[in-house]
Amino acid sequence: MSTRTEIASLGEFGLIEHLTRNNETLHASTIVSVGDDAAVLDHFGRQVVVTSDLLIEGVHFDLVYTPLTHLGYKSVIVNLSDIYAMNASPTQIILGIGISNRFSVEAMEEFYEGVYAACQKYNVDLVGGDTSTSNKGFIISVTAIGEVAPDQFVKRDGAQKGDLVCVSGDLGAAYLGLLLMEREKKIFLESPAVQPDMEGQDYILRRLLKPEARRDIISFLEESNIIPTSMMDISDGLSSDLLHICKQSNKGCVLYEDKIPVAEPTREFAFKLDMDPTACALSGGEDYELLFTIKQEDYDKLVFNEQISVIGYITEPEEGCHIITRSNNKHPLTAQGWNAFG
Amino acid sequence: MSTRTEIASLGEFGLIEHLTRNNETLHASTIVSVGDDAAVLDHFGRQVVVTSDLLIEGVHFDLVYTPLTHLGYKSVIVNLSDIYAMNASPTQIILGIGISNRFSVEAMEEFYEGVYAACQKYNVDLVGGDTSTSNKGFIISVTAIGEVAPDQFVKRDGAQKGDLVCVSGDLGAAYLGLLLMEREKKIFLESPAVQPDMEGQDYILRRLLKPEARRDIISFLEESNIIPTSMMDISDGLSSDLLHICKQSNKGCVLYEDKIPVAEPTREFAFKLDMDPTACALSGGEDYELLFTIKQEDYDKLVFNEQISVIGYITEPEEGCHIITRSNNKHPLTAQGWNAFG
Repeated sequence: MSTRTEIASLGEFGLIEHLTRNNETLHASTIVSVGDDAAVLDHFGRQVVVTSDLLIEGVHFDLVYTPLTHLGYKSVIVNLSDIYAMNASPTQIILGIGISNRFSVEAMEEFYEGVYAACQKYNVDLVGGDTSTSNKGFIISVTAIGEVAPDQFVKRDGAQKGDLVCVSGDLGAAYLGLLLMEREKKIFLESPAVQPDMEGQDYILRRLLKPEARRDIISFLEESNIIPTSMMDISDGLSSDLLHICKQSNKGCVLYEDKIPVAEPTREFAFKLDMDPTACALSGGEDYELLFTIKQEDYDKLVFNEQISVIGYITEPEEGCHIITRSNNKHPLTAQGWNAFG
Repeated sequence: MSTRTEIASLGEFGLIEHLTRNNETLHASTIVSVGDDAAVLDHFGRQVVVTSDLLIEGVHFDLVYTPLTHLGYKSVIVNLSDIYAMNASPTQIILGIGISNRFSVEAMEEFYEGVYAACQKYNVDLVGGDTSTSNKGFIISVTAIGEVAPDQFVKRDGAQKGDLVCVSGDLGAAYLGLLLMEREKKIFLESPAVQPDMEGQDYILRRLLKPEARRDIISFLEESNIIPTSMMDISDGLSSDLLHICKQSNKGCVLYEDKIPVAEPTREFAFKLDMDPTACALSGGEDYELLFTIKQEDYDKLVFNEQISVIGYITEPEEGCHIITRSNNKHPLTAQGWNAFG
């Protein structure tokens, strides 16, 4: 091979798009393929949803401050979240792990304790396991399987002009939890005698270390007879993920800064670090909240649900993607938050 | 945690058994769970088969002598093989990769070329992808999904006394291909100028680098109206895998050395290395042939299929697991081949 193109030049999403650009679908049973939170397969008229995620030590988690039980729990949650994001219910998981001899059987027991806790809480079965050696580090692969009533699944590409942009829970907490842990890790490595200062930070730490998947929102939508026009879970950050929905739906959007839900402990810790809480909510990942769009006529059905915020609306693609700040300025939305904050 | 138990003290299978000993099944739809080639899930009366495998650079493959296209192909094949081993047909795969910046876009294109080639040949759709960074090395996670007519799946635990033990194709070639590549790698690292000597070794190299999954055997069994009483694919070696079937079926077995199929090029290269071809066939892994048991009355249906060898029979568990050598000696079968060769 004569040329070398750096992967960084395409980015993660660009790479997947590039590599799957000629991907053809052979099976009539393949309903939703590459490019969404999960795949949807038709098995004899009933629909199965499948997703898989890889978690790599040093990339996705740091064992210096991640208890193994929490890691096991979170590994399951991030996959269940992808199933819920299709408007489906998870039923089973398969777990593959690669571990070096640095880990003991007791360590693996702790990890599995978290896995089982998540399985129990979300009512899913662990149905397969594969353990192998790794030369270095801990590698986790989780596949989640779910079911959805025929054609009730929700993709990323269905947002329509005038739809309302909604988000569950609050944003930015996991990212600030990560900054807190990175700060404490640095202090610890420099001066091991110093006691970590994490008082009052339970909320952002829990959001980082023990996230939950929003099964309650999916149940609420079902009970309220709302089928979102598009949906995904927020793993990369609100901006980046909303841009995915707009791109895949071929639409634009307007977002209101003052509508973006940020919890009080998140706001406080952001100020402590001299950071803007909105920027954290827009760019911080790993919240595992649901981001979805609904028809305007469904607004009345969810207005009283305090776990759901309406944060903007969908426009024609020519209008682009923008955020209206508290000071009533309009800025283009970018994957990193917004371009110029001035 | 006060004690530390080394994982090596349990072994890979022991570890999984230990960690899943209290695993409970919550869903009625979970038909086959941990402990077989794949899980079987009931979706509204129709059955879905799911399996997942992790392949880690330096553990499962060596990029010094593994072309990326072949690696992509093989990553798919090893998972399809698990689906066929359930007597099912694969329909879709999901691929997750972790790559360091050592890899270029062109390198990933080569890898995906192999993935697509396998998908096309075996008529499966790639329906999901997840790419992430890895600090070091190449990590591959493949999930395969298949379907099986209701209750036609074949597990490992159904072998009955008197059943015939059958194996497809021939054994030991992939292992000898590995020994050849390891030898050439060593020579190359010591004296890079020496040309590799791999003449006439196409067969064992192909078996290592570009294995195939035995879809043809599954089709043949279906056409012949044979439902094996137990089945699995040979990934760890004939001995180890047959011991799995015996243990899970709570049975013993007798194996005949002279019935074990070994191809001529495999035999020749084994002799070249002063190794016993039977030992290679028993202990060498990665052949991805199918190992299965059938009722005696089905013997006539497969006796003329040259791709299937009958190599022994199932006994009561008290009789243990043995091999009868060419010299008519009886030895206990162990995961490493057999105990005393004397």
